[in-house]
Amino acid sequence: MKIALYQGPGLINDPAGSFLLLAEKASQAALEGADLLILPEMFLSGYNIGPDNALKHAVTPEGLAPAQDIAAAQKIALAFGYPELVGDKVANSAVLIGPDGGILLNYRKSHLFGDLDRAMFKAVGTEFPVAELGGFKIGLLICYDIEFPEPARRLALAGADIILIPTAQMQPYEQVARHVLPARAYENQVYTAYANHSGDDDGLSYVGLSSICGPDGTVLAMAGLGEDMLFAEFSLDHQKAVRAADPFFTDRRPALYGPIASY
Amino acid sequence: MKIALYQGPGLINDPAGSFLLLAEKASQAALEGADLLILPEMFLSGYNIGPDNALKHAVTPEGLAPAQDIAAAQKIALAFGYPELVGDKVANSAVLIGPDGGILLNYRKSHLFGDLDRAMFKAVGTEFPVAELGGFKIGLLICYDIEFPEPARRLALAGADIILIPTAQMQPYEQVARHVLPARAYENQVYTAYANHSGDDDGLSYVGLSSICGPDGTVLAMAGLGEDMLFAEFSLDHQKAVRAADPFFTDRRPALYGPIASY
Repeated sequence: MKIALYQGPGLINDPAGSFLLLAEKASQAALEGADLLILPEMFLSGYNIGPDNALKHAVTPEGLAPAQDIAAAQKIALAFGYPELVGDKVANSAVLIGPDGGILLNYRKSHLFGDLDRAMFKAVGTEFPVAELGGFKIGLLICYDIEFPEPARRLALAGADIILIPTAQMQPYEQVARHVLPARAYENQVYTAYANHSGDDDGLSYVGLSSICGPDGTVLAMAGLGEDMLFAEFSLDHQKAVRAADPFFTDRRPALYGPIASY
Repeated sequence: MKIALYQGPGLINDPAGSFLLLAEKASQAALEGADLLILPEMFLSGYNIGPDNALKHAVTPEGLAPAQDIAAAQKIALAFGYPELVGDKVANSAVLIGPDGGILLNYRKSHLFGDLDRAMFKAVGTEFPVAELGGFKIGLLICYDIEFPEPARRLALAGADIILIPTAQMQPYEQVARHVLPARAYENQVYTAYANHSGDDDGLSYVGLSSICGPDGTVLAMAGLGEDMLFAEFSLDHQKAVRAADPFFTDRRPALYGPIASY
């Protein structure tokens, strides 16, 4: 499977423009032979837009039809973040759309980040779903989720081979991009793709540094500070070899881990 | 608190010589004003010595009296690995001795690494104890333990401010030294000190790269491939500021983590 990752500033408070940008980037990735394109957190509306705009632009997954059409037209899977309307609440969500346009996964950020997230979103998500694509099992997390070891571990225990992480990672948190992502890939023996914004956004300065990592913790591709598109190949055979060489999931001792789920 | 870390090849199958080396390094660290010196896994006997030698050199904590005398003489805390005799079994253990010579912690490696560890040791340890020293709460892990997120998480949840990790980290696992250690420090907002062997040892080639990391994931000091002594200052005030700025332990959602302790 060939994966593409788009890092860019995106468009703020402009879902119609964002769908056009999505079509452009999907076309570009498909031309390069990519099977899957991942884009940042809240790609559809911009991230730092405040609660009123988050609610204004929030849609149910049915509102993602233009993205489903793009995926089907370009025969490429798409993963990106958007404000999801859940009843009268807004969730910080991410979707994985298959190359036939069908929605494969919808994930709601379970770990909200500070006042920024909490002003806009409710943590209505409690599920860590996994779906299959091209022989790989894929899970989604969003930004701050990956800074905790537990959500990625849950996905790996549910069989995930790939974890896709749309993000909006700002200064001063470069350690996450530089060290936490390779560590998550290594410890869970999964592929990771961490797609960040670039540029500034109403006082936030994004660190860029989007990355794609392999199941042995190798950084396969990493962006700099600015707009970029990354590519990498994912191999099930390589992943199987890594897992056979170091059987982390056999060597775990879950009977010792009770307190992690208790407090 | 000033911490010193000794990375070196150590002595193989020579506990008496290892106590002399310990005295030399403790004196050197104390002269530099260090309050605590950490040394590698199985420092007292060498790591890759096979099951017969592991049993031959195994001692109960009472057998560490020479190290207790060194700590008291130099008024420095010491943490290092040794083969521990537990009944008729050998555990891969690490001890923390206080600057008065008293044993503060004894930890038995809970995650055994491959055939190497399993040929020599039994995983008799199920506890993750924490002790206080100089105002910090300290926990111990050993080598492979730190590659799993759960043991460090358990220590952090038990209040650890510092995690000391004697190790014997060989090729091709550089990712652990380069990325997993800073990630463990970051995600748990703890200081880490990861003390490795250097050189070759009966077919193993140690990666060196011992490190000391801060609670924001900053690498405070890192060794190269060869023998070295690292130093760093640990500050409770800095650690409190890091934890106040990013309340990871308030933002955790343990109710979602059940499967981590189940399978």
